[in-house]
Amino acid sequence: MKLPQNVSQADFTAALKAFAGIVGDQWVFTTDEDLELYRDSYSLMWGEADERTASAAVAPDNADQVVELVKIANQYRIPIYPISTGKNLGYGGAAPAFAGSVVFDLKRMNRIVEIDERNGYVVVEPGVSYFDLHKYIQEKGLKLWIDCAGPGWGSLLGNALDGGLGYTLATYRSHFDAQCGIEVVLPNGRMMRTGMGALPGAKTWQQFKPGFGPRIDGLFKQSNYGVVTKMGFWLMPAPENHTTGVVTIPRFRDIIPLVDAIGRLEQSKIVQGLWNLSSPTTGTSGDGGPGGGASKQKDSKILAILNDPGGVDMDKLDAAAGAAGIPFWACEFNFYGPKKLIKAQWDCVRDALKEISGAKFKLDEIRALPLSPEELAKMRDAVTLGIPTLKTFDLGPMLSYEGEDVVGHIFFSPIIPRTGEAAIEAMDVFATIARKYKLPYPPVQFPASMFERAFMYVVALPVTRSPTVNAKIREMFRELVLIAAERGWGEYRTAPAFYDLIMGTYSYNDHALLEFLETIKDAVDPNGIMSAGRYAIWPRHLRDAKG
Amino acid sequence: MKLPQNVSQADFTAALKAFAGIVGDQWVFTTDEDLELYRDSYSLMWGEADERTASAAVAPDNADQVVELVKIANQYRIPIYPISTGKNLGYGGAAPAFAGSVVFDLKRMNRIVEIDERNGYVVVEPGVSYFDLHKYIQEKGLKLWIDCAGPGWGSLLGNALDGGLGYTLATYRSHFDAQCGIEVVLPNGRMMRTGMGALPGAKTWQQFKPGFGPRIDGLFKQSNYGVVTKMGFWLMPAPENHTTGVVTIPRFRDIIPLVDAIGRLEQSKIVQGLWNLSSPTTGTSGDGGPGGGASKQKDSKILAILNDPGGVDMDKLDAAAGAAGIPFWACEFNFYGPKKLIKAQWDCVRDALKEISGAKFKLDEIRALPLSPEELAKMRDAVTLGIPTLKTFDLGPMLSYEGEDVVGHIFFSPIIPRTGEAAIEAMDVFATIARKYKLPYPPVQFPASMFERAFMYVVALPVTRSPTVNAKIREMFRELVLIAAERGWGEYRTAPAFYDLIMGTYSYNDHALLEFLETIKDAVDPNGIMSAGRYAIWPRHLRDAKG
Repeated sequence: MKLPQNVSQADFTAALKAFAGIVGDQWVFTTDEDLELYRDSYSLMWGEADERTASAAVAPDNADQVVELVKIANQYRIPIYPISTGKNLGYGGAAPAFAGSVVFDLKRMNRIVEIDERNGYVVVEPGVSYFDLHKYIQEKGLKLWIDCAGPGWGSLLGNALDGGLGYTLATYRSHFDAQCGIEVVLPNGRMMRTGMGALPGAKTWQQFKPGFGPRIDGLFKQSNYGVVTKMGFWLMPAPENHTTGVVTIPRFRDIIPLVDAIGRLEQSKIVQGLWNLSSPTTGTSGDGGPGGGASKQKDSKILAILNDPGGVDMDKLDAAAGAAGIPFWACEFNFYGPKKLIKAQWDCVRDALKEISGAKFKLDEIRALPLSPEELAKMRDAVTLGIPTLKTFDLGPMLSYEGEDVVGHIFFSPIIPRTGEAAIEAMDVFATIARKYKLPYPPVQFPASMFERAFMYVVALPVTRSPTVNAKIREMFRELVLIAAERGWGEYRTAPAFYDLIMGTYSYNDHALLEFLETIKDAVDPNGIMSAGRYAIWPRHLRDAKG
Repeated sequence: MKLPQNVSQADFTAALKAFAGIVGDQWVFTTDEDLELYRDSYSLMWGEADERTASAAVAPDNADQVVELVKIANQYRIPIYPISTGKNLGYGGAAPAFAGSVVFDLKRMNRIVEIDERNGYVVVEPGVSYFDLHKYIQEKGLKLWIDCAGPGWGSLLGNALDGGLGYTLATYRSHFDAQCGIEVVLPNGRMMRTGMGALPGAKTWQQFKPGFGPRIDGLFKQSNYGVVTKMGFWLMPAPENHTTGVVTIPRFRDIIPLVDAIGRLEQSKIVQGLWNLSSPTTGTSGDGGPGGGASKQKDSKILAILNDPGGVDMDKLDAAAGAAGIPFWACEFNFYGPKKLIKAQWDCVRDALKEISGAKFKLDEIRALPLSPEELAKMRDAVTLGIPTLKTFDLGPMLSYEGEDVVGHIFFSPIIPRTGEAAIEAMDVFATIARKYKLPYPPVQFPASMFERAFMYVVALPVTRSPTVNAKIREMFRELVLIAAERGWGEYRTAPAFYDLIMGTYSYNDHALLEFLETIKDAVDPNGIMSAGRYAIWPRHLRDAKG
């Protein structure tokens, strides 16, 4: 049996016994076989001494049990690591940030506590997945949509706490922003409710985000200041219709006026659905998927330019695409709602983009919702219709790297300005690294536009089972982070292996932000038991050891 | 000269001298005449021993000076109270929450640090008012709007930190939500930047709110954890057109389907401009203004029912209004953008509301923006067009109360559910108190809809210069707070005199929230120098004295 650092065998045994006294023996896991489930199968340290694995796992049934478990952890100074469903693959999975932690697996806490069709909200426990909630809504016939993360097996609550994203209207896409009202067990075992939930018998806990006094919900995002046991979310009324409209733009550098014009439409709240850049010329798309809705090119000259080992010359590519009559950019917009509104919004898009020379417009048929199974089957991914899927795992054909099988991926996810110039710069920078490390990628990658005012790149790096190759990937990741930071681009999210590296780039005024986060950590978690190291926030005793 | 509590004359003199060494003698204020400016002229304790007044004021020119001033305050344990422009009248003004504090008046820090038309943001210092920024934008000819608080002389930054509100599109109206990126001097004198600003040379500080790790911006709202010296805001592109559409509904209780239908339109992001309930029958409106755009009733039977000292019988009122052909409700919607979009949005509103029996619809002329001065003059208040004004001070005719001149008002501001039933209940409850205290009010008040998913009441209570009458008002305020709390309604904002009372109602699990806030306070401000007592957060040495 593994032991957490600095914990005696006697204390650990006593703690596990006390945990079992709360949750029952069958919900305390200590065998290698059971703990295998809490490894991060996409870890870049797989099988190495530095792989961060759990010493045990405990699965409580409810928030009161969490309170008791946290008190026991304090008593014996057991490092704990709560997870919701642990499905944030590519960002760490179920494995703890500090090796030897006891995972608190909250999957049994999977109650849909309250759902309100009229006011459009739901309150869930950590174990509720997008699939669970979608099924529940369908069964009850509620006219509500959820904004799903890519993989539908994820936890609403966990995804929000991790800073995750969805695919419907802008106001619902940033899941932590769509959250309203948190119940949390603090590291000292105190149960707390945020916002209006702090008022006993509150009637607007899920309807009013600011609350009274400081707004502390954000403290529980990407952090280790508490175990969130309930969370409210604002939901979208099921819309009547959906369609997509595609604008094609001939030339590469016309991404600059394109992004500017779309930005004004978004800032004016005229474009509110997700839009996605893809390229018929290069065959790549901005959401990580291959080629988007646009048909891929076949032109041999284009292929030759794309496969130039020295890098893609965009001017040559433009010329070849022009000669072949293939537009460089296709931009697909999603629209929701009454037909007349969709038509007006599409007309506004046309008006705003028509000045870009050669722009062409095509609105798909406006379809009444819900779609029939046949219509759904034709879609690339129903996630834009609020339907959870696992299609994101169809991502792409990265089967091997450096002669090793690729078993998964980790995401390098920088945030860059929402301008065409920045997108061009980022494509160039990241393509250079990809070539240097001989990644089996499309030669250019495009930014994703889920966030409202900034672009995100989601560069999936391969994970293998070879320590040598994985070390090389880690080096590449490190290089990407540092090159991005030099240019003023920071990551929004990462896996435990890179928490410290990336937090290190957020170093303004001698790391004032991290110092502040550590000050709060020491105050609210004096024994440093909770999720040590998560997002680079270490408790004092481990910080000192580290430094 | 006044002295702060627990500070010796010698230390205070030394501190003031040191402050002057940083900012210059002329920016340290200690005379009664100067300090008069920092009294809250809307205080309900005016002239009483409990009135919270400043011992001195200091006006730094820049953030580096703030750092030095804060260090000095720590050295001498001087309680300080930073204000932006101190114009949050009705919520405390410029006066400190803890009597004897030294006000840090940041009005000289009035730089518009950066404005970006393309990406739609601005970075301001605390002294920048809505008037200042509007003038700047007009002079530069930028196609940007600001979302103004009621009075245009307020500070963008101060209003956001106070949880204030505006009048344009929903996404811009909650000013703390429209904020992106904070620079703050912590109570220990450390300068920190939040979000992407923590990355040196960050390119997306004003474009990406979540940052990396915990999202801490909310800690600086309605609190005392730092002096905010810069703040970014998302701005709206100046729209092409504006208009209003009015829906009238005959019967009082039809507010229930009305609010439900509007709620779905808002949740679907179809209605995004502010809508405002008023009543041609009663002559009152929901934004605190008299009568809204609807013409007031003249019918004598209606007047008799309204003036019934036993309370307004809504069934009788409905009948009389019906007989006189006066609708009970008028609901005015604001629309912005391209004409075709406005028309489509209005059609969606019609479609959604037409099932309410007797609903009538009238869309005003769609006017190209900017309006001419003549057209502007005809508007009730240009604040819905992003133009700062002081018209909110035309509020109403509360000239005297209990025989005393009314010199101002304080706001009781509860948050209630966004349903017609809750609105009816709240009207009834608050009208009962108003009658009990013989307030010279319209007999019913309506909820305001600035917040996206909850109603807010803004009940202005009179302030006089009579301690006896003011004591009665305080008692009424207290009664309102407690009655609201019993029903699950909490306030979103208040004046210093009521911080402790209201925070006391947010008492879930034996005041776990306040305990958490105090834990953070003690950690980040160990000497307890900053804005003691603001929003009921007291530093340890004053908390112990208090308890």
